[in-house]
Amino acid sequence: MVLLDKINNSGDLKKLNNEQLKLLSEEIREFLIDNVSETGGHLASNLGVVELTVALNKVFDFSKDRIIFDVGHQCYVHKILTGRKDSFSELRKLGGISGFPKVKESVYDSFDTGHSSNSISVALGMKRGFKAQGDNRNVIALIGDGSLGGGMVFEALNDLGNTKENVMIILNDNQMSISQNKASISKYLNKVRTGNSYIDAKFHIENIFSKTPKIRKFVKNSKNFVKRLFINSSIFEELGIKYYGPFDGHNIDELIEVFENSKQIKEPFIIHVKTVKGKGYPFAENVPEKFHGISPFDKQTGNIIGGAKEDYSYVFGKKLIKLAEQNEKIVAISAAMPSGTGLNEFKKRFWNRFYDVGIAEQHAVSMCGGLAATGLVPVFAVYSSFLQRGFDQIITDVCLMNLHVVFAIDRAGVVGQDGETHQGLFDIAYLSMIPNLTILAPCDYNELENMLDYAVNKINSPVAIRYPRGVQKTEISFSREFNELKAIVEKEGNDLTVVAEGSMVSDALEIAEILENNGISCEVVNVRVIKPLDMETILKSADKTKRVVTMENGMLSGGMGQRIANMLTDDVKVLTKGYDDKFLEHGKPDELKKLCKMDSKSISVEIKEVFGL
Amino acid sequence: MVLLDKINNSGDLKKLNNEQLKLLSEEIREFLIDNVSETGGHLASNLGVVELTVALNKVFDFSKDRIIFDVGHQCYVHKILTGRKDSFSELRKLGGISGFPKVKESVYDSFDTGHSSNSISVALGMKRGFKAQGDNRNVIALIGDGSLGGGMVFEALNDLGNTKENVMIILNDNQMSISQNKASISKYLNKVRTGNSYIDAKFHIENIFSKTPKIRKFVKNSKNFVKRLFINSSIFEELGIKYYGPFDGHNIDELIEVFENSKQIKEPFIIHVKTVKGKGYPFAENVPEKFHGISPFDKQTGNIIGGAKEDYSYVFGKKLIKLAEQNEKIVAISAAMPSGTGLNEFKKRFWNRFYDVGIAEQHAVSMCGGLAATGLVPVFAVYSSFLQRGFDQIITDVCLMNLHVVFAIDRAGVVGQDGETHQGLFDIAYLSMIPNLTILAPCDYNELENMLDYAVNKINSPVAIRYPRGVQKTEISFSREFNELKAIVEKEGNDLTVVAEGSMVSDALEIAEILENNGISCEVVNVRVIKPLDMETILKSADKTKRVVTMENGMLSGGMGQRIANMLTDDVKVLTKGYDDKFLEHGKPDELKKLCKMDSKSISVEIKEVFGL
Repeated sequence: MVLLDKINNSGDLKKLNNEQLKLLSEEIREFLIDNVSETGGHLASNLGVVELTVALNKVFDFSKDRIIFDVGHQCYVHKILTGRKDSFSELRKLGGISGFPKVKESVYDSFDTGHSSNSISVALGMKRGFKAQGDNRNVIALIGDGSLGGGMVFEALNDLGNTKENVMIILNDNQMSISQNKASISKYLNKVRTGNSYIDAKFHIENIFSKTPKIRKFVKNSKNFVKRLFINSSIFEELGIKYYGPFDGHNIDELIEVFENSKQIKEPFIIHVKTVKGKGYPFAENVPEKFHGISPFDKQTGNIIGGAKEDYSYVFGKKLIKLAEQNEKIVAISAAMPSGTGLNEFKKRFWNRFYDVGIAEQHAVSMCGGLAATGLVPVFAVYSSFLQRGFDQIITDVCLMNLHVVFAIDRAGVVGQDGETHQGLFDIAYLSMIPNLTILAPCDYNELENMLDYAVNKINSPVAIRYPRGVQKTEISFSREFNELKAIVEKEGNDLTVVAEGSMVSDALEIAEILENNGISCEVVNVRVIKPLDMETILKSADKTKRVVTMENGMLSGGMGQRIANMLTDDVKVLTKGYDDKFLEHGKPDELKKLCKMDSKSISVEIKEVFGL
Repeated sequence: MVLLDKINNSGDLKKLNNEQLKLLSEEIREFLIDNVSETGGHLASNLGVVELTVALNKVFDFSKDRIIFDVGHQCYVHKILTGRKDSFSELRKLGGISGFPKVKESVYDSFDTGHSSNSISVALGMKRGFKAQGDNRNVIALIGDGSLGGGMVFEALNDLGNTKENVMIILNDNQMSISQNKASISKYLNKVRTGNSYIDAKFHIENIFSKTPKIRKFVKNSKNFVKRLFINSSIFEELGIKYYGPFDGHNIDELIEVFENSKQIKEPFIIHVKTVKGKGYPFAENVPEKFHGISPFDKQTGNIIGGAKEDYSYVFGKKLIKLAEQNEKIVAISAAMPSGTGLNEFKKRFWNRFYDVGIAEQHAVSMCGGLAATGLVPVFAVYSSFLQRGFDQIITDVCLMNLHVVFAIDRAGVVGQDGETHQGLFDIAYLSMIPNLTILAPCDYNELENMLDYAVNKINSPVAIRYPRGVQKTEISFSREFNELKAIVEKEGNDLTVVAEGSMVSDALEIAEILENNGISCEVVNVRVIKPLDMETILKSADKTKRVVTMENGMLSGGMGQRIANMLTDDVKVLTKGYDDKFLEHGKPDELKKLCKMDSKSISVEIKEVFGL
């Protein structure tokens, strides 16, 4: 690639003229498609911000200026332009570059992100911090329209509008977050988009930003004119944030001019940029949701290599439909993730019993509390790491009143390529401390189905079911039912008891096999209920073997193992296995398990060492 | 009291005419001042909603209709009117009625609340739930202007505006939350208030809500007229929520008319009501913040009985000023609680190094992440239970990048009269699981001062310092410094080791004295550092005594004791003491400790039993 090959940092980019930058943008698109089709990753959002990122790096110097990528998966182009293009074959791989901004990777990355709607808060903190130290560098928050649904954004705008710090917000408006935005903030943006005001606004750009004294008076009027045009755009202005746009996010000339002129603004302001998710790759433009976070695919056909597989999310969604057919009190809730959590079919089938609240986990949890207070059975399907946002609400608006809300916690445990912010390693610890909450962990698809049935139909208090990303490793529970909050002995043995939860049960059975081959007889207890623990079953086995190993797909600190260990009798020796007290980087789940010595082989070795077997 | 004596439920109230209701309101004010001056509690906010609550109970039937009190401390008048006035002498006392809505107290209470900004979410959930079951009852969210700063509100409005459910929101606008609102949402409301539009709006009330066909056309126009008048009131409308007001929150006639007519509205809408906090009691009107949550006071003078005392919050605030004088990188952050957290003086002294972000803990935490990324040292002073709102942000925006943010966690442990939602019992558990975070717990004022010094000046990673509500019990650490992350032996002994954190160290010393009188020699370890635990000191003592008792002012489940117990050798017997896995009601802290057998005497007895001493 003629131009891209020469770009090793944003200094190289600054030497190019606008026409060259347009060619460079095309080369970047090709590069993105070539690479992500091989590695997998976030494609559509990055194709949408090519010109935007090029223009930003042309105008600003992000070795000093700061840019906070909200969520962060739209940072690929920025990485390509700032010295990391040669690492793209290792994108999201263990030891390779991250799919999210990472300060330790480059001085051009300003802040590690991963969760939504925090960029304006961080940017405001940075601006205040630099200002206090007499440093006037530019601070930019780049945020997608989907992230606007997160309440943090308004908390930040509220503070920003009041204190008038010179933070620049770029609203990257591509009309969808991960799935389609449905809540009213997107209706509002839609009104802005569909007026003929857009063309008028373009026409006035140079006037709006003009610096010459003569035009300045006209600028003032034209600002008001633009403001009048966007009669529906007053939300930002009313919060004290100046609003400019919308601008064409694929027009390099326009973007560069806008950004250059924006340096003159000395108050908080929003630049509204309209982009197309998946831009330039027809498959991604047509079905951007598919190309949001995608596995390796055939770039000629857009087909995912290996094709779609049945996984835990799919099994959950299918079972929930069956249960909803029989129990009309069941409703489902999603926070902008109906596809990822397997609820797409439910959404179609029971459109009036399905609520997608946008990226708004706090609201989702409390809204579930309200639904449950009327006797309905809300099932909130959510990724483990994103449910962290609703932690307080789980305590105060669900568990305090012992309300029957079901949390279907997808992506629990090691998640993989998305790295630190997406690992679902904390949920056992942060949920186990909450009174009244029952926590279940299925060992396979069948158990997930039966636990879901139990959770919605056979209990009348809050329940969480945690299950991992991806596919079941082996079928363990066969057609076995789940009718009581009890653990179950999957395999009997005499020398050692392995107590495992959820996805670790299959590892425990592997370990048992390895140990049996070494003449060690191993009993495997599938804990099934993480809270309240069935200590009767566990103690009975421990009393027989006098050696207990706990295994969980989550943090050791505050996890299930520590709780079990506390309840064992003094004559039982214990080994607790879980993830250590540090953030876990990106990589394939199996690789990460090995890295953390959480795979069956490593644990088998450790068991023999620890117990001297 | 002539009228109030006859009111045993809202049915009795419905028999009164408007003139009688006005007299009743005055009697309620007298009743409130009489009672709260004796019991302590939330006075100013309740004096502000007397007429509002009377009018609501006149028009609606809250044995069926539902009302969600945001935060909830403004529910006293509602309780007085719905069968609980004779219980007011036991307000907030152990076994007495709660100062917050409690469904188990009365069918007239709709949902237990305590934390801010969740009312619209809950109300929307309820409306959806009832509607799905063919039940058309009214659902009302009553929310103060301070709570609008919480991002959840916008998440809920976003969802509500989109789905058009018929939820009624009453915005109780008294121009302050607990301390004065500073962020821009309150500026916006101020604009609405100060226009002459208010009088015009009043004039048009009957037209706006009129049901007669002839006037309906005019209504439509007048709505637009009112809308035009409130040029700054379009935030709600833009989010799809109809806006009416502002109305006089102390005018019973007007309120009843507004509420009666509002029953005709079939979409989501906001009734903006202007009230005066502390209304009718001059001392409270003049300094409403003092009369927010107040101890017993002399109703003739407004003076708090016993006067203001030095407490942990005060000591923290004073020390932070000293540290800030020496280290200009220190900045302080509050989420609408500068007074409660002892930051009022700091705010005056270092106004440009102090940020009050409103009730917005999520934003506060991430903003601190931004500040720290520039090299400043942000100190976020926050109540333990409110910090739960920032849980995810502590993980992703502070600890992931190992940023130097100091969390000064006030009201950690048993808090007391405010009950379940305000107890600070979870923080040890929810913070201990987070990588990179250091957690400190001072045993007295001196140790708090020295730990704060250490946290801002001698460490370069995230630190939490947890300290209790109220005063130190005894002075333990004298002029001792805190220079390393180590536990300390406060008292030597041979038969037993008591490992205690923070406020429990004084109890541990009491226990040691009780046990010594029984001939049992007790060693007391002040843990000081909850994370990372100084196991060297603990193990050394445990190895000597072979018996360990852990004591913490927090939940047992996931707490410090379970972590310590896991790291002791097999030959050491352990007793872990902390709060059981249930929500802890209201009452004085000492009473609650006794109730939970967490007082020195009870623990001493248990120790002797468990260890057979």
